[in-house]
Amino acid sequence: MHETTFAVLGTGGIGRRALEVSKDKEELTPVAACDRHGVAVDHDGLDVDELLAATEGNIASDGGTAAAKSEGGIKQAGTDKGVAASVQADPTETPIDDIIDESDAIDAVLIALPNLEHDFIPRVAERFAEADYEGVLVDVLKRSRVIGMLDDREETLQDSGITFVCGAGATPGFLTGAAALAAQSFVEVHEVDIWWGVGLKSGYEDNRGTVREDIAHLDGYDIETARAMTDEEIEALVDEHDGVLEFHDMEHADDVLLERAGICDAEDVTVGGVLDLRNDEKPTTTTVTVTGETFDGEVATNTFELGDDTSMEANVNGPALGYLKAAVRHNRAGDYGVFGPAELMPGF
Amino acid sequence: MHETTFAVLGTGGIGRRALEVSKDKEELTPVAACDRHGVAVDHDGLDVDELLAATEGNIASDGGTAAAKSEGGIKQAGTDKGVAASVQADPTETPIDDIIDESDAIDAVLIALPNLEHDFIPRVAERFAEADYEGVLVDVLKRSRVIGMLDDREETLQDSGITFVCGAGATPGFLTGAAALAAQSFVEVHEVDIWWGVGLKSGYEDNRGTVREDIAHLDGYDIETARAMTDEEIEALVDEHDGVLEFHDMEHADDVLLERAGICDAEDVTVGGVLDLRNDEKPTTTTVTVTGETFDGEVATNTFELGDDTSMEANVNGPALGYLKAAVRHNRAGDYGVFGPAELMPGF
Repeated sequence: MHETTFAVLGTGGIGRRALEVSKDKEELTPVAACDRHGVAVDHDGLDVDELLAATEGNIASDGGTAAAKSEGGIKQAGTDKGVAASVQADPTETPIDDIIDESDAIDAVLIALPNLEHDFIPRVAERFAEADYEGVLVDVLKRSRVIGMLDDREETLQDSGITFVCGAGATPGFLTGAAALAAQSFVEVHEVDIWWGVGLKSGYEDNRGTVREDIAHLDGYDIETARAMTDEEIEALVDEHDGVLEFHDMEHADDVLLERAGICDAEDVTVGGVLDLRNDEKPTTTTVTVTGETFDGEVATNTFELGDDTSMEANVNGPALGYLKAAVRHNRAGDYGVFGPAELMPGF
Repeated sequence: MHETTFAVLGTGGIGRRALEVSKDKEELTPVAACDRHGVAVDHDGLDVDELLAATEGNIASDGGTAAAKSEGGIKQAGTDKGVAASVQADPTETPIDDIIDESDAIDAVLIALPNLEHDFIPRVAERFAEADYEGVLVDVLKRSRVIGMLDDREETLQDSGITFVCGAGATPGFLTGAAALAAQSFVEVHEVDIWWGVGLKSGYEDNRGTVREDIAHLDGYDIETARAMTDEEIEALVDEHDGVLEFHDMEHADDVLLERAGICDAEDVTVGGVLDLRNDEKPTTTTVTVTGETFDGEVATNTFELGDDTSMEANVNGPALGYLKAAVRHNRAGDYGVFGPAELMPGF
């Protein structure tokens, strides 16, 4: 594969780690990164170490609402914090527009922004399309409804020449990809069961957006109530569960994305898992099981298991960049539109 | 995905089953099939049931050498046998040319011919290229050296507009795809171990080509010596092992294909397995383990396991048609060339 240049929108946990992982990927060159108040662009490749050091424990935000704060994982706020603190960066009031201005020379953009409103990321995509961006956009969202919003904009994205991959992180990205592959033994898939274990080494403090997003899936909560919680309320909830939150029948984009790829009906997909906020160890092994019927009438189950020592971060960022690379191949050939990760796998 | 029309070259075990599996795939329409002496074409879709019934236990060949016979899995020979026995077919002396003549209306061709000579399938591909075929060719080979021969012809294939996927069956296809996906947690892959179990319900009699190809991997055998064996010699060898052949450190295309996809060095891939010719049950569980290091310095192993009740046939034909569909997407976008299955997965 030829060299691929990419930008990262947002330098919270996912954005920072994507930059870090890209250091191990020869053909991937990060050329731009931004947060709310700063933008760094170097078409010869950013100095990732410098940028990470400058933004470590130093994530810029607008210092706004408690909800925005907690979703963004803010530690410090202000116009001279975050990306702007890097010697490679400039302060800006219009970070996304600044990246769009440079996008002729950017093959792909990883959108690692907190999705404050449901349609925030779809609207970001729209702005790239309005600027006639021809390239790849990737997000790592987990919300089913965002996919519909992207579909509504598919024609606009196609006209611009955008290949959009939605939900390309660990879940749904990695695990629906595994389900799509595991389905290949079968002519009919009866059931897909996705069960994840996450031990967040870095705890709630460093993963506010993720934890809040997960809490929305607990019984009695939804995205709105989870977003309205204060940090103290979340800490109390976590305490109440001794740091271990268990989820069943989560409303997760996996079901929609597997149905989209034609693998099974959304209702045949169950997603659950265990999040331990006090231990490095995964509380349970992340497992994807796909049960189906073969063409010769046997019913069987194929299984994909992630090693317990692979962190959530590794399982988000590897696949996000992996799908990004696959999407660049499609994009260069002129294959535009909105794709779930499973649609980039062998067809079912 | 739009409707995809496809042809099958060869109606031995793999070709017949691909036709059968395609009955469960709405968007796949088989429009042509051939063997040595017959060709059936119907651009509105073949009647698969009739064709399968006509060719069941009735595979045409030239009635030639013992080697050709056993690789082809012949049961009957002669010009009115095999595909020609179908009411949809005509006898022919030039089956492949006949398919090429119709190929403007064929999106993809599954090459399920016994690879009598190493370069037989590459030469078939060349014939399609010479006719300016624009479409997909897929084979299910397992021999590393064939891939180099296809690479030698890559420019010719690209000029014609061909997207060629090599080795798209169970191994290397399905299992290298699984390895490529499992690698996504890691920034460096240390080891890929592919271990397969096959219980051939239908025994040696129905799977001569496969069994002979596998015997070539036993200690003291190679492709040439395995090909030179008579059926009686193979039966004797099988008897000697009580029907169970165990293989270690097989020279298998998996290693070359994973290196090609940039996932690891060929030497980091080990392939082995157990073939039981007397039992339906798999003698061991087919497992792919991928051990690597994450960006955050952890070493772990991801695992993909096929359910014991999935037959070899299901695990060859599902992926072959799955990769065929993925390749059609690439081909329609204008992405031509030679691909290993792992290259159609998320990038590493």
